Amino acid sequence: MITLHHIPDTRSNRIIWLLEELKLTYQIKTYQRDPVTKEADAKLKDIHPLGKTPILTDGDLCLAESGAIIEYLLDHYDSEHQFRPNHYPQKQQYLYWLHFSEGSLMPLLIMGYVHHIALDKGTPWWVKPVIKQFVSSLAKRFIQPRLTPQLQMIEAHLTQQAFFCGDTFSAADIQMMIPLQFYQQRFGCDAYPAISAYIEKNSQRQAYKASVKQS
Amino acid sequence: MITLHHIPDTRSNRIIWLLEELKLTYQIKTYQRDPVTKEADAKLKDIHPLGKTPILTDGDLCLAESGAIIEYLLDHYDSEHQFRPNHYPQKQQYLYWLHFSEGSLMPLLIMGYVHHIALDKGTPWWVKPVIKQFVSSLAKRFIQPRLTPQLQMIEAHLTQQAFFCGDTFSAADIQMMIPLQFYQQRFGCDAYPAISAYIEKNSQRQAYKASVKQS
Repeated sequence: MITLHHIPDTRSNRIIWLLEELKLTYQIKTYQRDPVTKEADAKLKDIHPLGKTPILTDGDLCLAESGAIIEYLLDHYDSEHQFRPNHYPQKQQYLYWLHFSEGSLMPLLIMGYVHHIALDKGTPWWVKPVIKQFVSSLAKRFIQPRLTPQLQMIEAHLTQQAFFCGDTFSAADIQMMIPLQFYQQRFGCDAYPAISAYIEKNSQRQAYKASVKQS
Repeated sequence: MITLHHIPDTRSNRIIWLLEELKLTYQIKTYQRDPVTKEADAKLKDIHPLGKTPILTDGDLCLAESGAIIEYLLDHYDSEHQFRPNHYPQKQQYLYWLHFSEGSLMPLLIMGYVHHIALDKGTPWWVKPVIKQFVSSLAKRFIQPRLTPQLQMIEAHLTQQAFFCGDTFSAADIQMMIPLQFYQQRFGCDAYPAISAYIEKNSQRQAYKASVKQS
């Protein structure tokens, strides 16, 4: 039996979505974060040493890292290559966006978010103006010069193509939705109409809706 | 002809290394960073919209993202699966470390490094104590609680196994060397003898030495 170890509203949402797209039978074990420290339930460390979700177990195998879990599920349960192109150049697109999502886009979003939370909740009022200037300077000098070209590239790509690998939905779309939704929730996507329409289109997929009900 | 667009001492070192392991014929086009702004040569944007190295071109294909380039090269030039296991559970290890390297480990290292540089070079002396406390607090509350378990997991793994996928060297080792060397150069690896020995062992590989000469 496939078991997904899951914390709601984390990257493991994407694994539920792929399991639904593949029409697999699976169970979800849901864990919570500590409401104060935001630490994940320590029981997760009994399953995988880092204790971060998603963790997927299938027979004797225990898998972590979204991209690796996606590749595993497609290796085993997508023999007709419905969700992963089998030939280049489409496969190149698939691989690029699969790695780009967590290797390039997400780290910038997380860095900005961590600064925002630290400024908002962990900084005494009397040093806030100084810290705010430091955080703004980091955003201006490091995050924005990298993030904006990435979003512009994605916008241009989705203006030309319906999905990340072309005309057909693939697991690269599942991998990319999390950072795009994360960005949209924090900043809105008014400047990026193709990204906005793409998120809305994916949100209408039956498997996506089924995954949201369980996540 | 395979062409690697390269900036010395960046992630694209790992692609030269893999090209050497695969004994391929290739050319390197070297670019530089602006000595003041540290921006990559703008000509790179003519090849790929983000203008970040590594970029690899092979015929009509133009590839970016280390992990995606590695997968492409193995798909095309490693038909005997010398550098990528073809079966589970070894393939699971390969996929895990391939994605973990840039998806989990590197973002924490980069965040710490960016804070360090911003504190060191971009902060006026009269606010430095306040900023230093903020940066230390971020390291203590966000970076270290994630980074230390990752390094401990890697140390335990490399205590039990010679390479990331078991007894045999694979491209997952190439993907993992960059963050491990980055960590070692900044903080030293005295607390992690298995990681230290692993870096030294890989550094003795003929293909690695050949790559260093060209990077």
